[in-house]
Amino acid sequence: MKFSALLTSAGINIGLCVLFLSLYSVLRKQPANVRVYFGRRIAEEHGRLRGSFILERFVPSTGWIVKALQCTEEELLHTAGLDAVVFNRVLVFSIRIFSLAALLCVFGILPLHYFGQDMLHQRIPSESLDVFTIANVEVRSRWLWVHCVVLYIISIVACILLYLEYKRIARLRFLHLTSATPNPSQFTVLVRGIPKTAKESCSDVVDNFFTKYHSSSYLFHQVVYKVGKVQKIMTGAKKAYKKFKHFTDETVDQGCRTITYRCCLCGASSNSFKLLNTECEQKRGKADNVPSLNLDGEECTSAFVFFKTRYAALVASEIPQTSNPMKWVANLAPEPEDVYWSNLWLPYKQLWIRRIFTLLGSIVFMFLFLIPVTFIQGLSQLEQLQQKLPFLKGILNKKYYITQLVTGYLPSVILQIFLYTVAPIMMLFSTLEGPTSHSERKRSACCKVLTFTVWNIFFVNVLSGTVISQLNVLSSPKDIPVKLARAVPGQATFFITYVLTSGWASLSSELMQLFGLIWNVIRKYVLRMREDTEFIPSFPYHTEVPKVLLFGLLGFTCSVLAPLILPFLLVYFFLGYVVYRNQLLNVYRTRYDTGGLYWPVAHNTVIFSLVLTQIICLGVFGLKESPVAAGFTIPLIILTLLFNQYCRNRLLPLFKTFPAQDLIDMDREDERSGRIDEIHHMLHSAYCQFPDTGDVPLEKIKIIGGDEEQGSSSGESTDKEPCENPKNDLSHPTLKGLPVNRLRHAVKSITFLIRLQKRGLSSEQKSG
Amino acid sequence: MKFSALLTSAGINIGLCVLFLSLYSVLRKQPANVRVYFGRRIAEEHGRLRGSFILERFVPSTGWIVKALQCTEEELLHTAGLDAVVFNRVLVFSIRIFSLAALLCVFGILPLHYFGQDMLHQRIPSESLDVFTIANVEVRSRWLWVHCVVLYIISIVACILLYLEYKRIARLRFLHLTSATPNPSQFTVLVRGIPKTAKESCSDVVDNFFTKYHSSSYLFHQVVYKVGKVQKIMTGAKKAYKKFKHFTDETVDQGCRTITYRCCLCGASSNSFKLLNTECEQKRGKADNVPSLNLDGEECTSAFVFFKTRYAALVASEIPQTSNPMKWVANLAPEPEDVYWSNLWLPYKQLWIRRIFTLLGSIVFMFLFLIPVTFIQGLSQLEQLQQKLPFLKGILNKKYYITQLVTGYLPSVILQIFLYTVAPIMMLFSTLEGPTSHSERKRSACCKVLTFTVWNIFFVNVLSGTVISQLNVLSSPKDIPVKLARAVPGQATFFITYVLTSGWASLSSELMQLFGLIWNVIRKYVLRMREDTEFIPSFPYHTEVPKVLLFGLLGFTCSVLAPLILPFLLVYFFLGYVVYRNQLLNVYRTRYDTGGLYWPVAHNTVIFSLVLTQIICLGVFGLKESPVAAGFTIPLIILTLLFNQYCRNRLLPLFKTFPAQDLIDMDREDERSGRIDEIHHMLHSAYCQFPDTGDVPLEKIKIIGGDEEQGSSSGESTDKEPCENPKNDLSHPTLKGLPVNRLRHAVKSITFLIRLQKRGLSSEQKSG
Repeated sequence: MKFSALLTSAGINIGLCVLFLSLYSVLRKQPANVRVYFGRRIAEEHGRLRGSFILERFVPSTGWIVKALQCTEEELLHTAGLDAVVFNRVLVFSIRIFSLAALLCVFGILPLHYFGQDMLHQRIPSESLDVFTIANVEVRSRWLWVHCVVLYIISIVACILLYLEYKRIARLRFLHLTSATPNPSQFTVLVRGIPKTAKESCSDVVDNFFTKYHSSSYLFHQVVYKVGKVQKIMTGAKKAYKKFKHFTDETVDQGCRTITYRCCLCGASSNSFKLLNTECEQKRGKADNVPSLNLDGEECTSAFVFFKTRYAALVASEIPQTSNPMKWVANLAPEPEDVYWSNLWLPYKQLWIRRIFTLLGSIVFMFLFLIPVTFIQGLSQLEQLQQKLPFLKGILNKKYYITQLVTGYLPSVILQIFLYTVAPIMMLFSTLEGPTSHSERKRSACCKVLTFTVWNIFFVNVLSGTVISQLNVLSSPKDIPVKLARAVPGQATFFITYVLTSGWASLSSELMQLFGLIWNVIRKYVLRMREDTEFIPSFPYHTEVPKVLLFGLLGFTCSVLAPLILPFLLVYFFLGYVVYRNQLLNVYRTRYDTGGLYWPVAHNTVIFSLVLTQIICLGVFGLKESPVAAGFTIPLIILTLLFNQYCRNRLLPLFKTFPAQDLIDMDREDERSGRIDEIHHMLHSAYCQFPDTGDVPLEKIKIIGGDEEQGSSSGESTDKEPCENPKNDLSHPTLKGLPVNRLRHAVKSITFLIRLQKRGLSSEQKSG
Repeated sequence: MKFSALLTSAGINIGLCVLFLSLYSVLRKQPANVRVYFGRRIAEEHGRLRGSFILERFVPSTGWIVKALQCTEEELLHTAGLDAVVFNRVLVFSIRIFSLAALLCVFGILPLHYFGQDMLHQRIPSESLDVFTIANVEVRSRWLWVHCVVLYIISIVACILLYLEYKRIARLRFLHLTSATPNPSQFTVLVRGIPKTAKESCSDVVDNFFTKYHSSSYLFHQVVYKVGKVQKIMTGAKKAYKKFKHFTDETVDQGCRTITYRCCLCGASSNSFKLLNTECEQKRGKADNVPSLNLDGEECTSAFVFFKTRYAALVASEIPQTSNPMKWVANLAPEPEDVYWSNLWLPYKQLWIRRIFTLLGSIVFMFLFLIPVTFIQGLSQLEQLQQKLPFLKGILNKKYYITQLVTGYLPSVILQIFLYTVAPIMMLFSTLEGPTSHSERKRSACCKVLTFTVWNIFFVNVLSGTVISQLNVLSSPKDIPVKLARAVPGQATFFITYVLTSGWASLSSELMQLFGLIWNVIRKYVLRMREDTEFIPSFPYHTEVPKVLLFGLLGFTCSVLAPLILPFLLVYFFLGYVVYRNQLLNVYRTRYDTGGLYWPVAHNTVIFSLVLTQIICLGVFGLKESPVAAGFTIPLIILTLLFNQYCRNRLLPLFKTFPAQDLIDMDREDERSGRIDEIHHMLHSAYCQFPDTGDVPLEKIKIIGGDEEQGSSSGESTDKEPCENPKNDLSHPTLKGLPVNRLRHAVKSITFLIRLQKRGLSSEQKSG
């Protein structure tokens, strides 16, 4: 590939970027797209841009960039959570280290490469890109020490920056844990592997165990029921209701547009609520004995156990409870919003085998993915393509620009398209693993996607191979440095184009929210559906974190060997910084948070990238027969690994558990201020197995039916959905069967919904 | 190697074994050797065989074998601890699985090998041993399914037996923990990484921290002081004292033999005690102001913290205390006898780097050890040896038996001698790692020796190579199965001779206690030293466990491929069972115990052996072009690994920590029975930093000087050495400087000892 081809590619991408950014700055001002571009704001701040036709709306502007940059880290933390801050810090770290690397490499190393060998230089545009890589430096060059020094500087500065970021994020995580409003998850333990007994009910077993062994700190518990069938009915009912709602809304819309439109904005049309309530009151006491849904014999496998203090919950979660490690397994519960309910009833015994099989599954997938990648590899090597498909020869030889396009642009576009399938598949694997929280699931998917990306984009391209040649590389680890050293500078061209296409273009499309935009248009004008006020996506960390880390890997590995990539990469990171901040502030809603657990992933990847870079440089110095430079690289590798080990010892434990000291301090502070009772009260309604999201107004039924329970669901100062009181106070015999009651409520609502739907349909038939 | 050579080797070894065993049965009856062969009994049961000259003493007998076999597991547990039982179970497991394997392989597979190819069979004695290995089975033989089935049976039975043993040992460990007499270590936490403050003393810092955060359960603490210099002086003084004591004893011996002989048996000659006491009383109050030993400013890095209940101690040890994982690191303390005091003051921050460097050190040692091994390899290949040392040619060709001896016997003897250096070096590495207990140190050394043994005896011999060829194998993991499949049957001969020499002969020498016997004779008749009543060795698990496990590995890997090894191996295990039981019951003293932690090591090694066997068989089936057998082997590998993972999940956690349920039950039981106060009282004297072993009667001084302390050291019902009260009751200002007091006592005793020694020497000069 020539320099001009690179410029073509860069030109196309810069054009596309400018186009997309301008388009975005216009589109975001259109009231019709407000849900696409300001999803979070509308949902959380309940603001609404009212549109009026003025010319300004159609003029591109840069205000959003300024806004994104002006936002402080505290604001980001407040609006988008700690994970967003971590992601932001990853970008900041990348900008910092690659600014330095670009400075050093472009001005220090690039001239060395360009004038590396005695050769007749052509005009720069028609110069091959290989001239700018280390391939152009002659063997036994006396300038290789410059590479070694630059490698040292980059590695040491990267380690220092990494350490500072690690400490900073550990501190932030700590503040996040301590200064947050009382978090119910800190008082709660998720117990799994509850042993079954014939005599006692599951609830009694849990109660007896914790009353016996944690009597001083045990508060109460809430059993999680395995409700496969009922859950299915519920989901079905919800879908039916949604459909029904859509139809009635539409029909009402046609009749009295203005009024209903306003009502719908509040969440649902008001007349259906009224119907529901009155109907429900009529039905009360009737559906109490549905025979098929008697869940008394239903197996329970897990329970939320609530403790009086944070420290007691931590202790219960850290100490193995019994001499069978598969029974009474306690872990700190995820936050209420974060619970992945449908995995909670998985038998704990299954989990380890699930984990193994999903691991195997994702490895197999990683290798099977090679088929399209090999094809792409063929595209970027034009000669091979022409050999295989001879009819292309004529076309490709004639049209110069087509050749440029094919070599410079097409491969990474195709790769990009295939890569879109990876994230959902990895997410599926992570779901099968059986995590108990959404955030854990996403983080696990993130790790899988990251491994996948690094393997299939970096290594497969570098080692340019089929499955067999990959396995050959795996089977001779000794030759890896030399092989990489031969391949990486040669593949630098591909990586530069990859940065341009996958990097820049994907940022633009992320900003544009192309899918969201198109879906918005289709829904509005083709399907004529109502706006879905509830569905606001959360940030796809599992795709974006690996992407940014992969570019970091490319940057490190190419930095010393092919520094031409660095300016493009730096532009990517700057752009990413602006775009992702904007998206986090405006588009995505933070429902759950890992509490900064993406940072160790990022840290490990950067360390891996550094060590890989050093190994490749070792190979290169070996190939260039510079024993001094190679000799000096080995201690650098050891030092980097030691640094990593230090971080693992010093900082990683902070991301795994909580320190006793601070939890005890928090508990005492709460007790001193008398807030502890309030917190205990709040715990009663913290976790709901049957989440009554706004689209199914089940909570209305429950509030009505709630007077047969303790009625603690009213008068909560939190902004949570009111929920049943899960307290199983055993001294009060009438309350023992509570979960069954709850299910009966669910059944009531289902039967009612079906009736409602029938009525809705008949009214539709009347109006239609 | 021919069958007759094997028979020669076997004959020599059987002869040696019978000789050694008979010798042992005679020698053990001689009163002079009673300390060598009944060290534990004399030390613990205070019994003594009184010798009289009768003929029976010189007739070999088999009574000891019967006694060793009759001993039940409970007796073994009682006398030699859980580790001895675990070791015993490893032998039982080996006997069981190899009995089955020998039955299946010798009668099922050996004939297949012998008649594997159409060939003219010679008389069996002059048959090459290769005829009995799988090398003699023709390619695409239709009998390979038998190998596959036998492999399946052995693997499955081995897994079942492993699981049963694992469960059994887990149960035993559990009983050991719960039913033992109240163990001070269960109430104690070893805290390291105590932060230094300028204002407060270390003791105050510890006290404040635990009073603040564990107020309900914290009892008191005991600071461990960094006493490098003083410790050295103490050790020096002890040595001086020992020397002195030896001389005085000898001199007294010459004067009035009978009386002093009786006195010495009680531990020390009585007049020296008297001198010491009176002298000490005279010196009291004088040595109180030694300026060079003021330890107030001395850094303290760790402390024993005592808790009211076992559960509280467990909680404190499991939960990270502060947000700095390098500070206030708490772990359950080792048992008092087990504490490795000289490592306790190591800064916690250093440990991770020490661990890394000792790991690197042991790996380097593992590879450097190859030089002698390569030489041995040369010996077993006679042709090479003759080429290199041509002068041997004449000798070796002429004398048939020398050839047999050289090929069949010498290589493993030399290897054996070199291997004697391994255990001390690995022990040194393990000490440098910084373990806090003797048992942990020994277990760590055991793992190192095991890795070393498996690599340097199995792999290096199989891959028959120099460092470079080994590294080549490491660098192409894909070819390993095929390489092993080619090499293992070929090396079976060497392994059989190895079993005969290293196995049988080392068992005999272990039984004979050759070193101990010789040392006993030298000490008694050449050096004319007194019997050392105190020094009774503890069982060398770090050399014996790897030995037994290595033979297991050899057995598994050779079982299907070269079944001729199995009968020899089975004899080894039977003999080992008898010998080790005898030694554990009579010779070795159990001072410390890991609580069964050798079992996970053994389990992992057996699993490794099984998987290795399966991989080798996979390679062999591949070489023999039997896709069916090879295809069926792959699921077996996966199943074995899954089984291992299941054990790791289900049983391994029991070996890492204690279950809360049982600890709480024990605590309650103690509280109910009122024994808890007694236990708390016992804790005061449980841990002594300056252990006053019997040979230096420092405790006498301390008891005398102890009236300025709380005097809680008297009246203890346990059989421990009386020790100072370490309670640093801060409300009592005069007790603050206790450790300094203790050191002053030490200094007193040292100065006194030196004076005493001088006097002893002068009296010797007078008598001489």
